[in-house]
Amino acid sequence: MVKTFASDNYSGVHERVMEKLMEANKGHAFAYGEDSITREAEERFKEVFGDVETYFVYNGTGANVLALEAMKGRATSVICPSTAHIFTDETGAPSKITGVQLLPVHSTDGKLDIEKAREYLSYKGTYHRASPNAISITQATEHGTVYTLEEIREISKFAKENEMYLHMDGARIANACASVGCSLKEMTADCGIDVLSFGGTKNGLMFGEALVFFNKNLTEDFLRLRKQNLQLHSKMRYIAAQYLAILEDDLWLVNATKSNEMAQYLREKLVEADVEVTNDVKGNTVFAILDKDVTEKMQEFCYFYVWEETTNEVRFVMSYDIEKSDIDAFVEKLKELK
Amino acid sequence: MVKTFASDNYSGVHERVMEKLMEANKGHAFAYGEDSITREAEERFKEVFGDVETYFVYNGTGANVLALEAMKGRATSVICPSTAHIFTDETGAPSKITGVQLLPVHSTDGKLDIEKAREYLSYKGTYHRASPNAISITQATEHGTVYTLEEIREISKFAKENEMYLHMDGARIANACASVGCSLKEMTADCGIDVLSFGGTKNGLMFGEALVFFNKNLTEDFLRLRKQNLQLHSKMRYIAAQYLAILEDDLWLVNATKSNEMAQYLREKLVEADVEVTNDVKGNTVFAILDKDVTEKMQEFCYFYVWEETTNEVRFVMSYDIEKSDIDAFVEKLKELK
Amino acid sequence: MVKTFASDNYSGVHERVMEKLMEANKGHAFAYGEDSITREAEERFKEVFGDVETYFVYNGTGANVLALEAMKGRATSVICPSTAHIFTDETGAPSKITGVQLLPVHSTDGKLDIEKAREYLSYKGTYHRASPNAISITQATEHGTVYTLEEIREISKFAKENEMYLHMDGARIANACASVGCSLKEMTADCGIDVLSFGGTKNGLMFGEALVFFNKNLTEDFLRLRKQNLQLHSKMRYIAAQYLAILEDDLWLVNATKSNEMAQYLREKLVEADVEVTNDVKGNTVFAILDKDVTEKMQEFCYFYVWEETTNEVRFVMSYDIEKSDIDAFVEKLKELK
Amino acid sequence: MVKTFASDNYSGVHERVMEKLMEANKGHAFAYGEDSITREAEERFKEVFGDVETYFVYNGTGANVLALEAMKGRATSVICPSTAHIFTDETGAPSKITGVQLLPVHSTDGKLDIEKAREYLSYKGTYHRASPNAISITQATEHGTVYTLEEIREISKFAKENEMYLHMDGARIANACASVGCSLKEMTADCGIDVLSFGGTKNGLMFGEALVFFNKNLTEDFLRLRKQNLQLHSKMRYIAAQYLAILEDDLWLVNATKSNEMAQYLREKLVEADVEVTNDVKGNTVFAILDKDVTEKMQEFCYFYVWEETTNEVRFVMSYDIEKSDIDAFVEKLKELK
Repeated sequence: MVKTFASDNYSGVHERVMEKLMEANKGHAFAYGEDSITREAEERFKEVFGDVETYFVYNGTGANVLALEAMKGRATSVICPSTAHIFTDETGAPSKITGVQLLPVHSTDGKLDIEKAREYLSYKGTYHRASPNAISITQATEHGTVYTLEEIREISKFAKENEMYLHMDGARIANACASVGCSLKEMTADCGIDVLSFGGTKNGLMFGEALVFFNKNLTEDFLRLRKQNLQLHSKMRYIAAQYLAILEDDLWLVNATKSNEMAQYLREKLVEADVEVTNDVKGNTVFAILDKDVTEKMQEFCYFYVWEETTNEVRFVMSYDIEKSDIDAFVEKLKELK
Repeated sequence: MVKTFASDNYSGVHERVMEKLMEANKGHAFAYGEDSITREAEERFKEVFGDVETYFVYNGTGANVLALEAMKGRATSVICPSTAHIFTDETGAPSKITGVQLLPVHSTDGKLDIEKAREYLSYKGTYHRASPNAISITQATEHGTVYTLEEIREISKFAKENEMYLHMDGARIANACASVGCSLKEMTADCGIDVLSFGGTKNGLMFGEALVFFNKNLTEDFLRLRKQNLQLHSKMRYIAAQYLAILEDDLWLVNATKSNEMAQYLREKLVEADVEVTNDVKGNTVFAILDKDVTEKMQEFCYFYVWEETTNEVRFVMSYDIEKSDIDAFVEKLKELK
Repeated sequence: MVKTFASDNYSGVHERVMEKLMEANKGHAFAYGEDSITREAEERFKEVFGDVETYFVYNGTGANVLALEAMKGRATSVICPSTAHIFTDETGAPSKITGVQLLPVHSTDGKLDIEKAREYLSYKGTYHRASPNAISITQATEHGTVYTLEEIREISKFAKENEMYLHMDGARIANACASVGCSLKEMTADCGIDVLSFGGTKNGLMFGEALVFFNKNLTEDFLRLRKQNLQLHSKMRYIAAQYLAILEDDLWLVNATKSNEMAQYLREKLVEADVEVTNDVKGNTVFAILDKDVTEKMQEFCYFYVWEETTNEVRFVMSYDIEKSDIDAFVEKLKELK
Repeated sequence: MVKTFASDNYSGVHERVMEKLMEANKGHAFAYGEDSITREAEERFKEVFGDVETYFVYNGTGANVLALEAMKGRATSVICPSTAHIFTDETGAPSKITGVQLLPVHSTDGKLDIEKAREYLSYKGTYHRASPNAISITQATEHGTVYTLEEIREISKFAKENEMYLHMDGARIANACASVGCSLKEMTADCGIDVLSFGGTKNGLMFGEALVFFNKNLTEDFLRLRKQNLQLHSKMRYIAAQYLAILEDDLWLVNATKSNEMAQYLREKLVEADVEVTNDVKGNTVFAILDKDVTEKMQEFCYFYVWEETTNEVRFVMSYDIEKSDIDAFVEKLKELK
C-alpha cells in the first residue's frame, strides 16, 4: 500500500525498532516483565522522566483505561474535554471497564477550558453525584493543537487545588514536545502530571504503550489491575525492547519532529492551494475543509479520514515516514481536482 | 538467559514468525484489521477451521474474556472446571470485565466432570440464580491432560441439550492436536465448539491470540466488543502475519509435536530417576513431586514453577525449542542433588 | 417537622396509601411478586397503560438503571439531556451498573434538543464508538418544564428513525399529565415510549417505583436482571398495594393536580413579591433567584434546596400536601426579609 | 393466603412494626437519612452493637453486595462457603455489581471449613490471581445450622491473620442469637466481625435491611457507594422506624425465639412421624426428605420449597407467626398422605 495521511498507525514499524526486536529475540526470558530487558527499559524511563514507575500495556485505550482505573476512588468521576479520545473514540471502554463517569467539558479545539470545568466542582461534596477526583487531558490534542507548558501547569494547579489527579493521554506527546521544544520530563513531571499514557504505536512501534506514574500512590497493586484489565503481556521483553529503541538517541523526537515538519509543510501547501485549514497546526495533524467529491477522489489516491461529515472537515495525519515529495504529489493531485 | 522449563511463554519468537513480521513491515496498511494481510489470515483460518469468523486479540486472557463476553446473555453464568485458567489465573478478569458468574466444578485432573456439572443445571429456570448458558473447557488442560475427541463431543452434547454454548480455551490446543493426532478442525468445529481461543504466544508468537467463532450468532457487533474490552490492535497486520507464519506448512503442529515429544522424554527420564510424575502426560506439560530444597537448587539451574507448595508438586513446560540435551543435562543435575 | 418546599420526598405517605398497606398486611403471601395483590396491580396497569408488562422496583434510580439495562445492547450508549437525573444525580450509577456510556446533549431547560442530539448519530456505524441505541428523557423535566405530546412524538420519531429505544424517566409524570391534561397512556404508549419509570415515592408512596414496558422485546429475562441489579423486593405485595392505592380513583392525578396548582400559586405570589422566577412553571417545581442571605434565613423557616450556587437559583417543590396557607406564610416571611 | 412454611418473607409485617410506620408518618422529614427518626435509629444501633456506623438499605442482596463493595480492594476476591447466599441465590449480583471474584469453599452444612479455605491463600501474593481480602459467612447458615461463638472467633482469627475482612450475612442473625443465647453484640463485635448485614425483612419488617460497620475504615465515602449501587431510600425514616420497632423491648429476639421454638417443635413432630430430618436444626429452618408426590400434595395444603430435586430434600422455614396448631395440622395431613 502506498503511504497514506490517514493515521500514524497506518505506517509500519520503524527499522530501528525492528532491529531491537530481533536483538531481543534470543533464548528464554522471564515472562510478565520480570526479565532483564524490561528492567533496563524501566531504568531508562527513570533517566528520561525522573523518579517514576513504568508499566507496559498493549494499546492506547488500554493505557488510558488503566490510568482511570488507577486513579478511581469510590464512586468517582473524571473531567475531560468533550473532544477527548476517552470520551469519543474508545467505544465507551472507560465507563464499561472502570465504571467511572466521564464529565465532558465542551471543547472545539481539543483543549480543556478550566472555567467551564469548574462547573463540575458542584459534583463534589454530595453523595448524589459521582465525585470528580481526576482530570484527563490529551497532548497533543485530538484536534492537532498543543497545550503550552503554562497551560498544563494551570490545569495542574486547578486539579491540585480541588484534590483531583491529572492524567495526560500522550498518544502524541512526542509531537507535542517537538512542537513546544521541551523534554518529556518538562512536559509531564515538571507540570504536575500524575500519570501519563506514553504512546508507542503512533511513534513507529509494532505494539505496546507505556503507563508512566509520577504519583506513586496510584501504583498500589497495579500489577493485579493490569492483568485483570487484560493488559499484561507475557513476553514483555518485546514491548520493552521497542521502547528502548525509540528512547535511544531520542528516536521518538526525531520521528516526531519529522512528522510535525511535514504537517507544517502540508499546511503551507494547502493554504497556497486555497484550501481552508481549520486548526492551529502544532503537531502532526492538519484539519481542512474539502468538498465531498474531491475528498472521495483524493482518498483513492492517498487515504485519509473525514472528521466531520456535516462540515466537510477532513483530517490529515503525518507519519514519521512521510516525505515532502508525498505531500507535493498530494497537493498537485488536489489542485487538478479542485 | 538459558532455556527454562518454566512456561512456553519464556521462549522467544520462532524464526519463521520473525521473518513474516519483517515481511509484513512494508509501507502503510489500513489499520484495525482492514488490511490485506489480515484478510489473508482470515481466509487462511477458513481453510483450516471451516466456515468461521476470526478476530485477533492481544492475549489469552483477552481472548477468553471476549469469548465469555460474546456468549453472555442477561444475568448468565459459565460452568468450568475448578482448575480452569479463567477461574484460577486471570486475576478475576472474567467476573470483573464481563460480570458473568463462574460456576466451578471440582476437578483434579483439569477436565470437566459432566455429572458434577449437572448439579448446576438447577441454576437454570429461576430468577434467583445467574443462568448457566455456557461451558468453558481448556484443551490441553491446565494439568497437562488432554480431552479425547469423544470426551469433547460428550461435553458438547451435554451443552447443547441444556442450551449452553461451548467455549474452548485453546492456549495449548496445538499440543492437544499433536497428542490426539487430529486436525484443528476435527478438535473444534467437528466436536461442536462454538468459540475457540486459539493460542499464539505459547506457540512461538511474539504477541497475539485468535478468537475463532464457529457459531456466528455470537459475533454480532463483536467489533465493538473487541475495542470496548481493550483488545483491538491498530496495526493488526502484525498479529495476522504471525498467524500466517504458524499456519504455513503446519508450523504450529511441528512446534507442538516437538514439545510434546520432549515432555514424553522428560517424563521417562524422571521416572528412570525415581521422580514421581503426577499427571497423565499428554501435551507438553509434566507435573512431578520434588523436595523443596532440590526444587530450589534446580530452579537456579533451569527455572520452573512450583505448582502446589503444600504437596511439593512442580510443573515443567516444554517449549518448542527444548532439546533432548537440555533434558539430559537437567536430569543429570537432578540426580546429583537427590 | 413542618412542611417544606424541599422535595416531594420530604412529605409523608398519603393516608390512602397507608390504608392499603394495612389492608395488604393479612396473613402470608407468595414472595417476589407471585402474590395476588401484585397480580391485581399488574392487571390494573394494563387497564391504565394498555398492553404493558409492569415490574416493581425500589426507587427511581433503580428504575432508571434497570430501564437502561433492559435497553442496552453490545457496547451501546444512551443520549440524554445534560440536565437528566441519570447524568447529574444518580452518582454515576448508570455507567457503573450498566456500563453504558451516557451521551449528554447540552440543555438549559431540561428538554432534549433533537438537532443537537443528531450530532451523536455519528457514534453509530463505527466500532470506535459506543453505538447510541436509546434516548432517555424526563417528564416533567428536572427543570420543572413539561414536554408537550407533540414534542414527545417528535423525539419518538427521531428515535425510531434512527433505531433507538425511548425511555421516559417519569419520576413526576403525574405532574406532567396534570399539566398537559392527558392520560398516562396518552403521554406514553400513544407517544411511542418503550419503557417508563413511573414514579411512586414522589406521589405519596412510602417506597417503590414501577417500570412499565410498552415494548415487550425488552423484557426478556428481566426477572433475572431485576434481582441481579438489587431491585427485587421479597414482600412485593407491599409495593403493589401502594400502586393500587394511587391508581384508585386517580389519586395520582388528584395529588399531582393539587401540587401543580400550588406551584402556580407560589409562582404568582413570588412574582407579586418581585422575586424572579426562572423556569416555565408547568409541573410542581418553581425555580427562582434569591439572595444568599435571604435563602439561608428562609431555609430555617421552611427548607428548600439551592439549585445553583453561582447564580443564587433555588428550587421549590410542591408536595401533594402543601396548602395555600403554607405558601402565604412563606411569601409573607420572604417579604419581611427582602 | 393461609400460613406457609415457605420462607420468613411470606409472612406479613409485624403489628408493632406497622404501628411504628404509622407513627413515623407525620408531616415532612429530611430525605435520604438526614431526619430525626433515622438519627434515633442510628443511636439505637450504637446502644445495641457498640461503636458502629449503620446504613439502611433496601434488601438482603443489596446489603450483602454493598458489604462486598465496601470491603473490596484492587482486584480482590472473597472467600465464602459454596452454600453462601451470595454465591447461590443472588443471581450473580456480587460479581456483576462489584466485579469481585467469589471463591467458594465446598460445604454441605452451610458452614465455612477453615482448612479448605486455607487453600485459597495461594491466591494472595501473585498478580495472576484476585487476592482474597475478605471472608463472608452466613449466620444462621442457609442450611439452618448455627456457628458457635467459638467457631466465629476462629474464622475471625484466621481472617485477621491473613489480612482479610470478615463479613456476616445476618439475614437470620436473630435466630442465631436466639439459638446460641447471646446478644447481637456478642455475636458480632465481640467476635471480630467487620461488617454485618442485619436482616429486617425476615424478622417482620415490610422492607429494609441494615448494614452495620464495626470496622469504620470501610465506611469512607460509603454514602456515595450506597446511592451508586441503587440502595439509597429517599424516605429513609420509614426504614429506620421499622428497626426502632424490632429493637424495642427486643422484639427481634421475641420473634426469633418463637420461630426457633416452632422449628424444634416441627422437627420433633416430623421425627415422630418417621420423616427424616437432614439438618442440625438450630435456627428456624428444618430440612427433611419427602417423597415427591407427598411433597406436591403437601405444598397445596401449606406451601414450602423443594431444596434439592435429586434427593427429595425439602425446606421448612418457620416465620414468627407460626403456631403449634399450624404444625400439628401440617403433620396430621402429612401422616394421612404417607
